[in-house]
Amino acid sequence: MPTKIMFINPVGTGTSDPHLLSVIDRVRRKDVEPVVVHLPKGPDHTEYHYYEHLVTHDVLNQVRRAEAEKFQAVIIGCFYDPGLREARELVSIPVVGPAESTMLVACTLGHKFSILVGRRKWIPKMESNARMYGLGERLASIRPLGIRVIEMLPEQKRLKQSAAREGRAAVDEDGAEVIVMGCTMESGFADELSRALGVPVLDPVVTSWKFAEMQADMYSSLGISHCKAYGYESPPKEEGWL
Amino acid sequence: MPTKIMFINPVGTGTSDPHLLSVIDRVRRKDVEPVVVHLPKGPDHTEYHYYEHLVTHDVLNQVRRAEAEKFQAVIIGCFYDPGLREARELVSIPVVGPAESTMLVACTLGHKFSILVGRRKWIPKMESNARMYGLGERLASIRPLGIRVIEMLPEQKRLKQSAAREGRAAVDEDGAEVIVMGCTMESGFADELSRALGVPVLDPVVTSWKFAEMQADMYSSLGISHCKAYGYESPPKEEGWL
Amino acid sequence: MPTKIMFINPVGTGTSDPHLLSVIDRVRRKDVEPVVVHLPKGPDHTEYHYYEHLVTHDVLNQVRRAEAEKFQAVIIGCFYDPGLREARELVSIPVVGPAESTMLVACTLGHKFSILVGRRKWIPKMESNARMYGLGERLASIRPLGIRVIEMLPEQKRLKQSAAREGRAAVDEDGAEVIVMGCTMESGFADELSRALGVPVLDPVVTSWKFAEMQADMYSSLGISHCKAYGYESPPKEEGWL
Amino acid sequence: MPTKIMFINPVGTGTSDPHLLSVIDRVRRKDVEPVVVHLPKGPDHTEYHYYEHLVTHDVLNQVRRAEAEKFQAVIIGCFYDPGLREARELVSIPVVGPAESTMLVACTLGHKFSILVGRRKWIPKMESNARMYGLGERLASIRPLGIRVIEMLPEQKRLKQSAAREGRAAVDEDGAEVIVMGCTMESGFADELSRALGVPVLDPVVTSWKFAEMQADMYSSLGISHCKAYGYESPPKEEGWL
Amino acid sequence: MPTKIMFINPVGTGTSDPHLLSVIDRVRRKDVEPVVVHLPKGPDHTEYHYYEHLVTHDVLNQVRRAEAEKFQAVIIGCFYDPGLREARELVSIPVVGPAESTMLVACTLGHKFSILVGRRKWIPKMESNARMYGLGERLASIRPLGIRVIEMLPEQKRLKQSAAREGRAAVDEDGAEVIVMGCTMESGFADELSRALGVPVLDPVVTSWKFAEMQADMYSSLGISHCKAYGYESPPKEEGWL
Amino acid sequence: MPTKIMFINPVGTGTSDPHLLSVIDRVRRKDVEPVVVHLPKGPDHTEYHYYEHLVTHDVLNQVRRAEAEKFQAVIIGCFYDPGLREARELVSIPVVGPAESTMLVACTLGHKFSILVGRRKWIPKMESNARMYGLGERLASIRPLGIRVIEMLPEQKRLKQSAAREGRAAVDEDGAEVIVMGCTMESGFADELSRALGVPVLDPVVTSWKFAEMQADMYSSLGISHCKAYGYESPPKEEGWL
Repeated sequence: MPTKIMFINPVGTGTSDPHLLSVIDRVRRKDVEPVVVHLPKGPDHTEYHYYEHLVTHDVLNQVRRAEAEKFQAVIIGCFYDPGLREARELVSIPVVGPAESTMLVACTLGHKFSILVGRRKWIPKMESNARMYGLGERLASIRPLGIRVIEMLPEQKRLKQSAAREGRAAVDEDGAEVIVMGCTMESGFADELSRALGVPVLDPVVTSWKFAEMQADMYSSLGISHCKAYGYESPPKEEGWL
Repeated sequence: MPTKIMFINPVGTGTSDPHLLSVIDRVRRKDVEPVVVHLPKGPDHTEYHYYEHLVTHDVLNQVRRAEAEKFQAVIIGCFYDPGLREARELVSIPVVGPAESTMLVACTLGHKFSILVGRRKWIPKMESNARMYGLGERLASIRPLGIRVIEMLPEQKRLKQSAAREGRAAVDEDGAEVIVMGCTMESGFADELSRALGVPVLDPVVTSWKFAEMQADMYSSLGISHCKAYGYESPPKEEGWL
Repeated sequence: MPTKIMFINPVGTGTSDPHLLSVIDRVRRKDVEPVVVHLPKGPDHTEYHYYEHLVTHDVLNQVRRAEAEKFQAVIIGCFYDPGLREARELVSIPVVGPAESTMLVACTLGHKFSILVGRRKWIPKMESNARMYGLGERLASIRPLGIRVIEMLPEQKRLKQSAAREGRAAVDEDGAEVIVMGCTMESGFADELSRALGVPVLDPVVTSWKFAEMQADMYSSLGISHCKAYGYESPPKEEGWL
Repeated sequence: MPTKIMFINPVGTGTSDPHLLSVIDRVRRKDVEPVVVHLPKGPDHTEYHYYEHLVTHDVLNQVRRAEAEKFQAVIIGCFYDPGLREARELVSIPVVGPAESTMLVACTLGHKFSILVGRRKWIPKMESNARMYGLGERLASIRPLGIRVIEMLPEQKRLKQSAAREGRAAVDEDGAEVIVMGCTMESGFADELSRALGVPVLDPVVTSWKFAEMQADMYSSLGISHCKAYGYESPPKEEGWL
Repeated sequence: MPTKIMFINPVGTGTSDPHLLSVIDRVRRKDVEPVVVHLPKGPDHTEYHYYEHLVTHDVLNQVRRAEAEKFQAVIIGCFYDPGLREARELVSIPVVGPAESTMLVACTLGHKFSILVGRRKWIPKMESNARMYGLGERLASIRPLGIRVIEMLPEQKRLKQSAAREGRAAVDEDGAEVIVMGCTMESGFADELSRALGVPVLDPVVTSWKFAEMQADMYSSLGISHCKAYGYESPPKEEGWL
Repeated sequence: MPTKIMFINPVGTGTSDPHLLSVIDRVRRKDVEPVVVHLPKGPDHTEYHYYEHLVTHDVLNQVRRAEAEKFQAVIIGCFYDPGLREARELVSIPVVGPAESTMLVACTLGHKFSILVGRRKWIPKMESNARMYGLGERLASIRPLGIRVIEMLPEQKRLKQSAAREGRAAVDEDGAEVIVMGCTMESGFADELSRALGVPVLDPVVTSWKFAEMQADMYSSLGISHCKAYGYESPPKEEGWL
């Protein structure tokens, strides 16, 4: 049986599913089957924490479906990693957050990384997350591109120009050695940007996918997944809320 | 018009409402009217992060109702502070988290504080929250009492004995100068415990209430509330999700 | 008996007492009586740490007088919080430091705050204090206004202009979501500045006063004050130095 | 051409090569060819920092050989990660350190991890490394097993008993949710230990191998490797020292 | 003219002056003249922060006298380093704090150090100081000996036994590689304790003296002393408070 | 017998030995004999970590020779402190690193220090070292001069101009109160630069030398040196690698 990994596009529209699938398709191992799903309802972006909340329920349902359908790993495809803690509580299969996995990979590629987010609005939670993951000292800066999520695919040229400008500033002024694209819609042009900047640029769709492949392997062959003993202990079925 | 503050008991049952109200009633300013509400549905405790998620929607609805009905502050009455970020995004009135406010008050009372939580399961998120609030260095320890939330009111004697034992250990072994009760159900006996331990003990129902009174005052007279410019910027009404 | 709170203006002149009292009067609860006192001698500002030392003795005497005269809380009215540790050692009533209390309140209003101090000279101790209070991670920046304390009241226009300029830079360049005025003489125009900047601005006279009201309440009704067991243990009377 | 990854056993003996290869063989992807090499000379363990120094030259030579021979990634098989910075300076292919990669994976599996090292002697550098990698806050504890490297393979029973005892203490007393085996000779029984402890246990041979597979993939398909611009900039050939 | 260094015994009695001088005499360079002074009045110990305050004025007067009388360095002989910031503000000659200098030297001798203080009461400020000096990560623990300052010289046997017991625990349980005696009265037996424990033990009278000799040299020959530009800027003479 | 201290110039050329000796000669105590040695082979600079590795073996041999020939202290004369940990493992005499000792001295001279390094390439390891020494919070910034090590002596004018420009920026923009020259070739003009900048400037040749004199004294008279019990435990002779 082939390895299957689910990438949840945590919005109420499938518009960007083909884009995400094409990015994944370029980097996936051929023995791993990618399934990109979106939600039955909800906003078409998660720039607001309330929107993160609105999508979380369906995200968690997809996570549970992934486990039920024998996926070996599941990715919550938003750079805020919404519902990551709750998802790990509910299931035993590896749950991958694009922010968490991408920052961890970035740690191996240079002394400090900078995150390019869409808007300044995003910075407080992004920085809180980086610190909550224990990676605050590795963060050179978080720079906003001045672009909304829903503008990113339609306005690729502006997105790329802004990323090139802020990425350059991150490297030259903030001392970043690695650039992390801080949104799963800032995807598909990391290699191009990397050549321009002369430093590695991480696309969170790519890194979360590759991280998920690794975790799926470790889970399939060795049963390694997150600890179910304390923080991620599942609610008891008999309480009736699962 | 008198000041009104809403205390949201974020569970789907009103069983503990009278208890909470009685604790508040003992400490409230007489010119401030307390309203304790519970949720129309949901688990009767929030020990699991998934349960936190399950109650968040109704919590946020109550928070919005509080603003609509001219409450001057609202308290999300669970020590995990569930939905605090989302709530501040949605409204402009002060939103008080028991954990946040109690830890901040604790900082003025001693060098380090210890939190007594119900079960070890709670520790990872509690510690993440303390660090996310920037208070990791003030934390002496988090000690579990070995008691579930739903056992706390019925088994007061066991709760008090466990709190006395772990509080003593926190003071003697971990160097705590302040004890923080890490659950809004660990409420109503802080003064008794304080006398036994010889150090201040903070009841999160009490401290969040008093903190809310202070914030309500600053909001009423000066308009001071959380920043709406970046992290707590509200979603635009025209997107249709409010 | 009404609640009384003493605000110690820790300088050897009463020139600014009316100003402080007028700021407090605008925000105080009507059931709380404010008493503003200054010192019998000493410098008219505390920009130098030696001057802080020079006023500390009389500050501590006032603190002790406050306890003797049944004040329920006392505020040491300088943003360096001079003698805070010593005062808590000497008395059992709550002792409020403007810096400590204002920074703690700021933590609930936004992700990071910036402090606007008078001169660069002040920055090292301010930053040390912020870190000693465990709040280093919440600090966006400390920016100097280029104004001496004794110029602040006479040159209000220059003070306000400088605060507007540096406050703007703190928000735009340093990512501050809250502005903290870093001197009790930078008082009386926070609301005006807040409207201009679009983020909350905290006046330390106001926030220390409201924090003191809260602590006075918790002390009166519940006996909650700082821990007297370890760090704030009082010297024994029999040694003859009290 | 199949993917090849080199695992450098950084000692002057091949005694443990078959053991390492067998561990890798159990977890490797079948399309990735493992090559385990040891050094032409040097100590048979690297418990002393001087020994780390002694092996570094040959380790770096192997790393360069790996690049020359078109390996897609190379692992420096000692939990001190000796020569990691130097190796990344010399080559462009991904260089994987067992400590770095294992700690990063551990971050996704639980709130905090504990490292089980052979002797107390190892703790200072291990802790320095964890902090240098920016992961100090994720570390629950480092516990010594009281066993030398060279005793580990011959005295498997004592090793396993000691690991079970200290792993249990790490979980129960230090709050670890993940156990990290802190030596590449503490290998081959992580699953067994994990079942006994009820938390994930990471074998650094396994995790560094899987991490290397992931990095090899990202390098082959996308050219992603460590930044060559600043910290890992290579010495210029014309200086004649390469 | 020979180098002169003043050691201020910051208490109102000269009882321990000969002891201090004898410790210094054993370690001083023969070309450096030690002058031990005590204060004209004040408590005979500084275990309470209020007592620290009480002695600070005379300490600062001695510091200024030291500069006036061409001493090349001055030591404030209490492990709380009372008045260190104020003293550096007042004078240009190097001012040495026993805690600061001893902790800095300890950093070169091992991975982590433990401080043995007299009573638990001392711990909060000691720890705050260690963190304010930026050395919190190097601190293994602070352990109390259960002895008052004024008992230390008369009850040497008890002092030594307690130091041996707590020093042993610091090394074995807390991972300390260096023991720092946390009071200038815990002096004169560091070598003996070091032999017993097998790790370096630092006597703060010795290390502050040797550090002062070094700073006196750098000051005499190169003019190197603390920065007078920002934090230690002196008050202007014309304000009349010097 | 006079005190002898060895300063190891860790390069394969003696070109700069006279310069180093002249700097030392100006500041040394006349009862301490300086011996400057260079290595029999190796690069003429250590800007690359691989070059650090290349010189480490001969550095360690010199360190061992220093102990054998009864030197009382030895300085590893490069601001990367190459081989410091290994050297302390091998010998019992004090081993001084220019970076470590200079940063520690800087801590006593101002709130924060900035390091002026030659090139941006150096920053990652310098910053890692500062943090590994536990001094990250004391670091205002690391600024590159844009000059290679081998250009420093020949192009003194450019070096000084660049140091003046970046030192000024460090003081004015980064809040540095102390400037640390981040290379032992940035030596011989600290006093000149200090006068220009108005803040103390530390020459690492000078400060490491004075620190070594202090440590040599403490070692000679009291046997105080680094802990040999855990992290710096020597390899056993019988293993045959010493």
